[in-house]
Amino acid sequence: MLDLKRIEKAYKRIEEVVCRTPFSYAPNLSKMSGFEVYLKKENLQHTGAFKLRGAFNKLSCLMEEGYKGGVVAASAGNHAQGVAFSAQYFGINATIVMPESTPLTKVQGVKEFGAAVMLYGTNYDEAYAYAVKFAEENDYTFVHPFADDEVMAGQGTIALEMLEEVEDLDAIVVPVGGGGLISGIACASKTLQGKIKLIGVSAEGAPAMKNSYDAKQPLDSLSVRTIADGIAVRDASPVTLKYILDYVDAFESVSEDEIASAILFLLERQKVLVEGAGAVGVAALMHGKIDLPKGSKVGIVLSGGNIDVTMLSLIIEKGLTKSARKMKLVVTLVDKPGALQVFTKILSDINANIVQIGYDRTSTNLDFGDAHVSVALETKGVEHQELIRQALKKNGFVFKEEQ
Amino acid sequence: MLDLKRIEKAYKRIEEVVCRTPFSYAPNLSKMSGFEVYLKKENLQHTGAFKLRGAFNKLSCLMEEGYKGGVVAASAGNHAQGVAFSAQYFGINATIVMPESTPLTKVQGVKEFGAAVMLYGTNYDEAYAYAVKFAEENDYTFVHPFADDEVMAGQGTIALEMLEEVEDLDAIVVPVGGGGLISGIACASKTLQGKIKLIGVSAEGAPAMKNSYDAKQPLDSLSVRTIADGIAVRDASPVTLKYILDYVDAFESVSEDEIASAILFLLERQKVLVEGAGAVGVAALMHGKIDLPKGSKVGIVLSGGNIDVTMLSLIIEKGLTKSARKMKLVVTLVDKPGALQVFTKILSDINANIVQIGYDRTSTNLDFGDAHVSVALETKGVEHQELIRQALKKNGFVFKEEQ
Repeated sequence: MLDLKRIEKAYKRIEEVVCRTPFSYAPNLSKMSGFEVYLKKENLQHTGAFKLRGAFNKLSCLMEEGYKGGVVAASAGNHAQGVAFSAQYFGINATIVMPESTPLTKVQGVKEFGAAVMLYGTNYDEAYAYAVKFAEENDYTFVHPFADDEVMAGQGTIALEMLEEVEDLDAIVVPVGGGGLISGIACASKTLQGKIKLIGVSAEGAPAMKNSYDAKQPLDSLSVRTIADGIAVRDASPVTLKYILDYVDAFESVSEDEIASAILFLLERQKVLVEGAGAVGVAALMHGKIDLPKGSKVGIVLSGGNIDVTMLSLIIEKGLTKSARKMKLVVTLVDKPGALQVFTKILSDINANIVQIGYDRTSTNLDFGDAHVSVALETKGVEHQELIRQALKKNGFVFKEEQ
Repeated sequence: MLDLKRIEKAYKRIEEVVCRTPFSYAPNLSKMSGFEVYLKKENLQHTGAFKLRGAFNKLSCLMEEGYKGGVVAASAGNHAQGVAFSAQYFGINATIVMPESTPLTKVQGVKEFGAAVMLYGTNYDEAYAYAVKFAEENDYTFVHPFADDEVMAGQGTIALEMLEEVEDLDAIVVPVGGGGLISGIACASKTLQGKIKLIGVSAEGAPAMKNSYDAKQPLDSLSVRTIADGIAVRDASPVTLKYILDYVDAFESVSEDEIASAILFLLERQKVLVEGAGAVGVAALMHGKIDLPKGSKVGIVLSGGNIDVTMLSLIIEKGLTKSARKMKLVVTLVDKPGALQVFTKILSDINANIVQIGYDRTSTNLDFGDAHVSVALETKGVEHQELIRQALKKNGFVFKEEQ
């Protein structure tokens, strides 16, 4: 049973080791939303995510009970690092089971904390099943990523820090995957301050918990697909759903584009790197999905920052396109001398900076001599893009836009 | 005259408005260097850089004296935002002169704080000269970016925060452009704690202050060119050089590649976005240029985070190549059926992930039927890249590497 006492005990166990992350006022998000917005930067936590809190509390409890065996977890991400870090701290054995397709950087990240890694299965569910079996066979303790009172209590400590710093917080916005983070935070904050509103946010591509919340019963998803891999959970947990139904006031979801633009915003304006799962709260805020009275004091949890930089490059691209600062066109140039020159002059006159250009005369869709030119442009917003479209049309250019 | 008293007074003026940025232990940099490393995250400052401290202190002083006129600054970057923010706070007029080529985002950034922007000149020096003239003609106050006691005193407040949190710091590493930041920090920390070591770091592409330090006299540079635009200062200031010669114990410089890999490291491992100028201290540390006894407690100032995301994409690329996680090859494939298949099989067998591929049969350097294939690969480090080279050579492939 999760309650405030358990969360306060957890805080005593973890506070010496876990980083007290900043909870800072965000002037630009406040101005944009009409709320008073504070960001809890758990992406700056050791291991790059809040998961350390729950894992460390769980292992602390085991140590208090005199446990000397090993621990097992199934995770390719933040939970794996949390468990590995904590096991290393206590000098016990950790085995992390990861799907075979796990990128090498994630495997290495866990090995750096001294954990053993087993690659098993083609997806998370197979790795999970194997980890549970492996733990049973070897009499090790399996550390569940969220459906565990001590794990949820560890995550709940975030709320204690938030409310200590901004006492009269009106609402907390929390990313939801398995639901451990929001269960812990909601239990702590609702107990301390009954009037506070709790708002959960999921990715549209991983809707299990949102659907379950709406239906008031656990509903698994058929598949998950989202850049927010930290909350890409397929099956709804009845354990966390119970707390969520008890405590959570509203539940929103955000699209991939919205997540990408939030990641980009946090990078550019807040100077922090946040992974997809960590950015869903800000994505909801930026896209008008947080329904609260004007001037409300809102805390948003940035849950983690473990995102692959190659993925980040793609997200920057996507975010620039979404925020109308990049535009991709494929233009058909007819076989006339100077056609390319006319085209580039229009772009130059209208201050659209070309960042990439491709030229193709081999497409079978083209008349002899005609060519497809694909250009990527740096643009200055929605109106600027509309000017470009109009200028090209006025000059008789036929083009398609790519997203 | 800059002294501790002036810096302490500055702190009283600014502490209500300026963000007390985190000064946090960095486990990974500590392990890597053998020091105990703490990062002062001024990139998380309002306006994204420390420059707010100096500008706000300067304008506070003017207000205390009853000044009601306007202020003028020349800057395309962090100083401009600091002055604009502070002028808006005090409700006075600010005019920022920027070179004509200044990107629109930087112009908008300053306008958002209510400042007027004048675009003048083809480079910073022309903008600077015009700003001084404009201030004189209109009886406005020109706010120098560094050669000003109150500006330097404002920057020095960073040292007060650092020493309050880690009392027995052995050394502070500071980025140096004009020298205002290090003058303030060095004056405060050396006065409070005589034994502390002060280490300045410049970009190799902007060596004025480093050369002046070595020669013990102001030496201007002929030109500057570096991704660390925040410290791209051409002329050495005698005002700051005096303090630097008095207080600074060592002066290092770092290359563009070293800066890029530090930016990438801070992004991936510390989850913070730091601009080129802000990353030079970590670049020096990562590349063995900080000479201190093992176990020393070292504070490194991350001075700012205002970097263009398009530039960031390029730096991620550069950083990945530098850290041997990306490799670009141009391979000549001879005109034999299956040649491309053999080539891709080698890469696949050796776990080198292809992220981009280009195919060219039109080069005049080629025999009929042969083709150039350019590939970009995701690789796992120096040894992995060497394995790839050997495998290709063993199978008779001729290739060139691109940087």
